[in-house]
Amino acid sequence: MIDLRPVFHVIGLLTAALGLFMLPPMAFDLAEGDGNWRAFALSAFATTLAGVALALVCRAGRGPGLSLRQVFLLTSLTWIILPVFGALPLMIGAPHAGLTDAIFETVSGMTTTGSTVFTGLDDLPAGTLLWRGILQWIGGIGIIVVAIAFLPVMRVGGMQFFRSEGFDTMGKILPRAAGIALSISWIYLALTLACMFAYEALGMPFFDALVHAMTTMATGGFSTRDASFGAYQGPLEYVAGLFMILASLPFVRYIQLVAGSARPILRDPQVRAYLGLVAGLVGVITLYRMAVLGDHPEHSFREAFFNITSILSGTGFASVDYMNWGPFPVALFFVIGLIGGCTGSTACSVKIFRYQIAIAAIGAQIRSLHAPHGVFVPRYQGQPIGRDVIDSVSAFFVLFFFSLTGFSLILALLGLDTVTAVSGAATALANIGPGLGPVIGPSGNFATLSDAAKWVLVAAMLVGRLELFAVYVLFTRRFWAG
Amino acid sequence: MIDLRPVFHVIGLLTAALGLFMLPPMAFDLAEGDGNWRAFALSAFATTLAGVALALVCRAGRGPGLSLRQVFLLTSLTWIILPVFGALPLMIGAPHAGLTDAIFETVSGMTTTGSTVFTGLDDLPAGTLLWRGILQWIGGIGIIVVAIAFLPVMRVGGMQFFRSEGFDTMGKILPRAAGIALSISWIYLALTLACMFAYEALGMPFFDALVHAMTTMATGGFSTRDASFGAYQGPLEYVAGLFMILASLPFVRYIQLVAGSARPILRDPQVRAYLGLVAGLVGVITLYRMAVLGDHPEHSFREAFFNITSILSGTGFASVDYMNWGPFPVALFFVIGLIGGCTGSTACSVKIFRYQIAIAAIGAQIRSLHAPHGVFVPRYQGQPIGRDVIDSVSAFFVLFFFSLTGFSLILALLGLDTVTAVSGAATALANIGPGLGPVIGPSGNFATLSDAAKWVLVAAMLVGRLELFAVYVLFTRRFWAG
Repeated sequence: MIDLRPVFHVIGLLTAALGLFMLPPMAFDLAEGDGNWRAFALSAFATTLAGVALALVCRAGRGPGLSLRQVFLLTSLTWIILPVFGALPLMIGAPHAGLTDAIFETVSGMTTTGSTVFTGLDDLPAGTLLWRGILQWIGGIGIIVVAIAFLPVMRVGGMQFFRSEGFDTMGKILPRAAGIALSISWIYLALTLACMFAYEALGMPFFDALVHAMTTMATGGFSTRDASFGAYQGPLEYVAGLFMILASLPFVRYIQLVAGSARPILRDPQVRAYLGLVAGLVGVITLYRMAVLGDHPEHSFREAFFNITSILSGTGFASVDYMNWGPFPVALFFVIGLIGGCTGSTACSVKIFRYQIAIAAIGAQIRSLHAPHGVFVPRYQGQPIGRDVIDSVSAFFVLFFFSLTGFSLILALLGLDTVTAVSGAATALANIGPGLGPVIGPSGNFATLSDAAKWVLVAAMLVGRLELFAVYVLFTRRFWAG
Repeated sequence: MIDLRPVFHVIGLLTAALGLFMLPPMAFDLAEGDGNWRAFALSAFATTLAGVALALVCRAGRGPGLSLRQVFLLTSLTWIILPVFGALPLMIGAPHAGLTDAIFETVSGMTTTGSTVFTGLDDLPAGTLLWRGILQWIGGIGIIVVAIAFLPVMRVGGMQFFRSEGFDTMGKILPRAAGIALSISWIYLALTLACMFAYEALGMPFFDALVHAMTTMATGGFSTRDASFGAYQGPLEYVAGLFMILASLPFVRYIQLVAGSARPILRDPQVRAYLGLVAGLVGVITLYRMAVLGDHPEHSFREAFFNITSILSGTGFASVDYMNWGPFPVALFFVIGLIGGCTGSTACSVKIFRYQIAIAAIGAQIRSLHAPHGVFVPRYQGQPIGRDVIDSVSAFFVLFFFSLTGFSLILALLGLDTVTAVSGAATALANIGPGLGPVIGPSGNFATLSDAAKWVLVAAMLVGRLELFAVYVLFTRRFWAG
């Protein structure tokens, strides 16, 4: 039997913290004289109390560290249990959502997906809008900590490659995770503030700047406006694009940078490939728009830059409906959504380094074909890639496409048209936000989907954010045995 | 430098044989008093002459055997050079196609894809219709021989797993390939005749039965009728489904069966999985049609059985436009097209055994996650799967999805709408035949596509039929060096 007490002890502490995060929205609603503050007060009270109680009840079992299986459970259960509490203010207060919608919105927030079932954002109380921003913001920092501290030990999808940057010993995982969370938090906070000031400087009102800065750095994509970033076309799109890129780079490199060492970030092959990819894609789409649609250069470049960084990072802000750009950009947007950012950032999807390792493995495979007795070791940054990393990454790819297929089929079975089903599964699994087509595309909304479809998407968002294996392993009998 | 002479010697012989295969269509047109016989006479003469000349010119270089690189070149060049000659009768005679259409139709034939750019099939001369059938029929036997004799030595996409059934020594590859081709040919011929007689017995006219039997056993899907198999709804669909299944099973097992050993085919995990998959899918779609569309049980079952075996085997006959069955069947048809039949058959796509190996590898990966010091070896039929097989299969999967993405993007860039681009790339790469949507769906036709799109699809059909790596390896510098 797995001792669940240490797991629930930590989840209790995190839940209590979540409750405290409900106080700023309460304050905003109070300041604006909006009665909605009561929903946050009540939710904050209930959440903090439940969290503290859970932590206290499970305190007895707290041993010297966590076992590997406890780490798996902690990671998955955190993203399952916290959204239940996070949904409370959205049900008790505005917009008084039903259970399905509230859970969908909260999971979409905490997984930094950014798909929304809410309409009429322009008329929602400030507290509710801020709460959606906070959900993404803490989801973002949460996933960075998990990626740096937990996933390398969990050996999920090749993450053991980054083990040297994390930990080796289970016993120290919690204190060191706390330490890393602290250093990352300062950088995350500083970047968020910088983003907010930049938004303000270019004319965005303070409140919108605050929430958008949170959801930009979380690569989440919730907006305070129904028009999403379409309400802020112009120079603000450059700022957003820049910070979405910064949010997609490995945060460990920022710690090193702050410590005075610029070399690691400049030499990081993930960072280089990501920036190169952004440049290449923006170039292609800009040229395409100028050549095929006869569009103005600056306008083409700006819209390409903003929308590509938005999808590639998995943020999912939309400034225009790129469904109108023609079949090639639409297909390209679908594909780049399946690439994603760097690992150890708030960005989502498959991640750059997995493509780098897969391409290295395919290259070694092709080279070995006509020289069967040669030994071709795939390399990454000049270093040979370990067997287990290649196995993990390969399994991740195959499982990702199996999952995409499975979720697409289930959504189609629930009656969604093919484009909505496939792009809905992809956008949820890759934690992007918008899908394709008129229903859930950049100018659509997930509100019209059936409850069943929403729950399937909730599952896909969780599976995707937790890098597949961390969830699927819980469904094996062996995990629970012995 | 690679000595190309042995390669071209064999290709010359195969080309000469292709020329001889043009004589039956000539005879049919002569018998019907159709002047189109001259096109076949001329093409047969030119093709046989060119083939013999090539074989003679390159005879000098014929050594004791083929090197690995020569086997790669032989495989790829056969499917590139033979279609050029195979296209002659379609350009010189009816329907007097242009170069692009003639090459598209011939490559679609010889890769057993079955996508067609020809309309008005009902009015084409018998010789032309028979020639399309012959192209698929010899493409089918060709790919079985390649899969049994060449691919295991080429270690393409995990095919080395079947090495024990093939060869180990390069020196003997050609004589043994000829030997295998001979035994397989008898079985292939017998099954084709059986299929033809069954079609005839149930009322199909002799000529249609002959051509459809050829394209059924080749899992090719060319028809003599514009309505494809829609012209023969009813009991004939069961016969077609049965023979499409027989054509999708490993032909080596038939040799063993004829030799008196039924055990191998009954115990083959690929065969079991394939039959189980057919049963499951037919059951699901039958129930779906009865439940959701309120359809008659026998009608539901028959249409499900025919269309699922048609797509799963990569044949691509259409008896109805299943685009009208709703989003779930359409999405499912797309997915099962990416599964395919057993290796060593005429069936296409990724193939059952690769899914079995990938699932075993993912299972071992998941089991190892929470027990990092355990050793979990993926197994297939109880046997541990070799490292190189897992690497090959993983690389195949990833490369398949990369290729699918790449071809989809190129087609979208050429202006095809998203559904046509993605399903066109998939149906070409998996050698199925019909795509999805109104343009190239079951009731559509590839004629309306641009020439550029047709050439891209030609490339995709070749890459898919030759299992990706056999083609891609030719594009590496190292292949040509040293």
